Amino acid sequence: MNILYDAALDGELPHNDKAEVRQRLAEAVPGMTLLYREEDLRPFECDGLAAYRVLPMLVALPNSLDQVEMLLKTCHAMGVPVVTRGAGTGLSGGALPLEQGVLLVMSRFKQILDIDPDARIARIQPGVRNLAISEAAAPYGLYYAPDPSSQIACSIGGNVAENAGGVHCLKYGLTVHNVLKIEVMTIEGERMTLGSEAFDAPGFDLLALFTGSEGMLGVVTEVTVKLLPKPESAKVLMANFDDVEKAGKAVGDIIAAGIIPGGLEMMDKLAIQAAEDFVKAGYPVEAEAILLCELDGVEADVDDDCETVKQVLRQAGATDISLARDDAERARFWAGRKNAFPAVGRMSPDYYCMDGTIPRRELPRVLKGIAALSEESGLRVANVFHAGDGNMHPLILFDANQPGELELAEDVGGKILELCVAAGGSITGEHGVGREKINQMCAQFQPDEITAFHAVKAAFDPTRLLNPGKNIPTLARCAEFGAMHVHNNELPHPELPRF
Amino acid sequence: MNILYDAALDGELPHNDKAEVRQRLAEAVPGMTLLYREEDLRPFECDGLAAYRVLPMLVALPNSLDQVEMLLKTCHAMGVPVVTRGAGTGLSGGALPLEQGVLLVMSRFKQILDIDPDARIARIQPGVRNLAISEAAAPYGLYYAPDPSSQIACSIGGNVAENAGGVHCLKYGLTVHNVLKIEVMTIEGERMTLGSEAFDAPGFDLLALFTGSEGMLGVVTEVTVKLLPKPESAKVLMANFDDVEKAGKAVGDIIAAGIIPGGLEMMDKLAIQAAEDFVKAGYPVEAEAILLCELDGVEADVDDDCETVKQVLRQAGATDISLARDDAERARFWAGRKNAFPAVGRMSPDYYCMDGTIPRRELPRVLKGIAALSEESGLRVANVFHAGDGNMHPLILFDANQPGELELAEDVGGKILELCVAAGGSITGEHGVGREKINQMCAQFQPDEITAFHAVKAAFDPTRLLNPGKNIPTLARCAEFGAMHVHNNELPHPELPRF
Repeated sequence: MNILYDAALDGELPHNDKAEVRQRLAEAVPGMTLLYREEDLRPFECDGLAAYRVLPMLVALPNSLDQVEMLLKTCHAMGVPVVTRGAGTGLSGGALPLEQGVLLVMSRFKQILDIDPDARIARIQPGVRNLAISEAAAPYGLYYAPDPSSQIACSIGGNVAENAGGVHCLKYGLTVHNVLKIEVMTIEGERMTLGSEAFDAPGFDLLALFTGSEGMLGVVTEVTVKLLPKPESAKVLMANFDDVEKAGKAVGDIIAAGIIPGGLEMMDKLAIQAAEDFVKAGYPVEAEAILLCELDGVEADVDDDCETVKQVLRQAGATDISLARDDAERARFWAGRKNAFPAVGRMSPDYYCMDGTIPRRELPRVLKGIAALSEESGLRVANVFHAGDGNMHPLILFDANQPGELELAEDVGGKILELCVAAGGSITGEHGVGREKINQMCAQFQPDEITAFHAVKAAFDPTRLLNPGKNIPTLARCAEFGAMHVHNNELPHPELPRF
Repeated sequence: MNILYDAALDGELPHNDKAEVRQRLAEAVPGMTLLYREEDLRPFECDGLAAYRVLPMLVALPNSLDQVEMLLKTCHAMGVPVVTRGAGTGLSGGALPLEQGVLLVMSRFKQILDIDPDARIARIQPGVRNLAISEAAAPYGLYYAPDPSSQIACSIGGNVAENAGGVHCLKYGLTVHNVLKIEVMTIEGERMTLGSEAFDAPGFDLLALFTGSEGMLGVVTEVTVKLLPKPESAKVLMANFDDVEKAGKAVGDIIAAGIIPGGLEMMDKLAIQAAEDFVKAGYPVEAEAILLCELDGVEADVDDDCETVKQVLRQAGATDISLARDDAERARFWAGRKNAFPAVGRMSPDYYCMDGTIPRRELPRVLKGIAALSEESGLRVANVFHAGDGNMHPLILFDANQPGELELAEDVGGKILELCVAAGGSITGEHGVGREKINQMCAQFQPDEITAFHAVKAAFDPTRLLNPGKNIPTLARCAEFGAMHVHNNELPHPELPRF
């Protein structure tokens, strides 16, 4: 399925002769693995957003920083675009290759350089897997908090590039809150240190600027992260609701009661049924929605918090509340949630996963709006999401073999994101903009703000060779896409519910 | 005392005719207060760093965003530099005026626009005082966490500009961690919204970039901050030490024991004696150092943590440990710390306050280095600091009336900051770079990194009219100041202690 891919963005890119680029790179970077045959390039044609596929011109797999530096300098000198890729698990096409570009794969940098349990920091290479950091820190009773669902496979360099989140981000923050320092290389091969092990660094906050910049500003070559002590105790509550809006409101009530759960997830009926059918998690298939609430910390606190949350849930109209009796049941509760995407995939030939984020208080109303869009379009929508941080993942079910359904799904998806923006939210929570959501950036930002993004990009990469066509739309593109521009909560689609 | 001020940086600025600028502004921005007589300008000649004084060309006090916009557009059109000022409490001269520039004072924007206790956010104008936010949130049991010592006077716009810290930042983060969204205006009068009320915003993290940018990128016109629930209980421990390095090591031990205190402050003998003499806080004047450790949270936790911290302190060699018996004693313990600067001021005609930050584990060694520098120079140094986050405030005592003492104090201060950089730290923790530490930026950063700062600056303010001469040194200046460049822990002063 390649229909969603919009090749127009690549039109402006310089044309380079593949044989010449290959020869120049082979000469300039001796010893570096450089793939060029179609069968070798094929595995790199997409990242986790498999609907978008492009065969890269060349794939480079350096194994030293000197090789990275020479690669970048050579590409810069020749005017060849460079797309950097970590583990390739990203969900917005941020590592989608370019026909006219070199794909720089950082997967060979997988050394854990240093763990300092006293300072509670780890210094690692960008290709180290997210989960491997926590595994290495475990002997000291420490772990690395951000935990994207792909944590078994995704690498820390990609986590920094996408400012990755996860179930625990409500309490422990996104990647940007857990990274202290990074080493980066610009397209000209210059090395910079951003941030510091100390509490703050002077000058502009370039560390935060680079975190989430999707490979547009530089290549991350080393990362220093914070480690946290493992919580003494963790418990999971499941609450059933006969109304999805009530469940949405309960989320805000829990936070308003002064409790920040380790995880606070919501699933609606379609998602519950799909997950139960697939995983046998023990979910109530007759409920309209469930909330899963994990409480972690010191044992006495966790017990107190459990009682408070139960009371809040009852007042919010939960029809049943169950506490996972043991670690096995707790794991089962989470297994349903963690497998919700593939579970929904079993119910429909295709689905389209959105990643909108809204202020928590808007959850009930946005859920109502999504239900209206689903009814209007005739496409089923399953809702699975990080409710605590207002990060929604509506899954739009469709069949790409039915004429018009893909376009309809895209249209519904676009309108859902517009709803999110109009509710004071944003078009992405943790999956990034990448190639996928570049049009929606026009809905999120004013022309002056888009111009500011381009100016920042130009400050680090004036020749626009790093990951062109991702993350920031051109103003021309936004003009074309202008119909979606939502400003001051004035929606271009008057048929959508108003806030 | 005006000796520390280095006028050379203003040399490059355009010359503008004061009468003409005044007339054009009066025409373009009707109704705006515009001060021009020397006696009216005098109160604005410095911020909290009173050693640096410059009379601004004009002082503008707008009271509407339209006035700010017209002011900026007019200054931009005429090529007149603009320095933005909040309450003027900054300690690094970030709001130091320019003889050739307009001082834009935002103090009339002091409305609290909205407090949403459910979402736990407050939307406020930039001139609102830091403490006024917590006062307005108090009826809901909420407060705003960052608490600079100047919180009774400093305003939130300036807090954002300087990424202000405070005693509670170890646990609750700096300003950047507590701000969700800002409205800004560029020098061209364009309005932008950075960040969002939702958990994350797509695109580059311009919110973090603007936080701490010291008025170099734009003018903050509105701020949305997070509010936190007030902790149920708070207790303060005081530990005495017969050795300053032991106290320094104890700081790291507390954190390593898995406890993040609400505040963790250290004072050495000179600071203790000064504070005790001034405030009668009940400090042990014979001790070489004390630690003040505040624990806050749920009552049961606070009690548990108190026991753990006591044990850690005993193992670290504390000679005595006392728990503040009641709120009155707790307030007294803190009063000594909070009045330490004026207390030291009573011991010496002049003092010079540094603001270096280092990784916690380096505290004992850097303290030893400071003692060596003090002995070598013959100048007394009092140490008072946010020990938990490694943010040191050495106060160098001198007498400006003794020939050569000021220069000696500056030299010792510079060497202390070099020590901090060489220990993997930075030249400022919470006071900012401003005008004061612009030379030390050359020690902190490589030329490529300085160039990146200039490029980011140019992305928002290509004509360099916003607060020129602050925060980022020119490369020429760094070349001149090259002797201080510390790279890879190689110090230019071989007589300093090595790490």
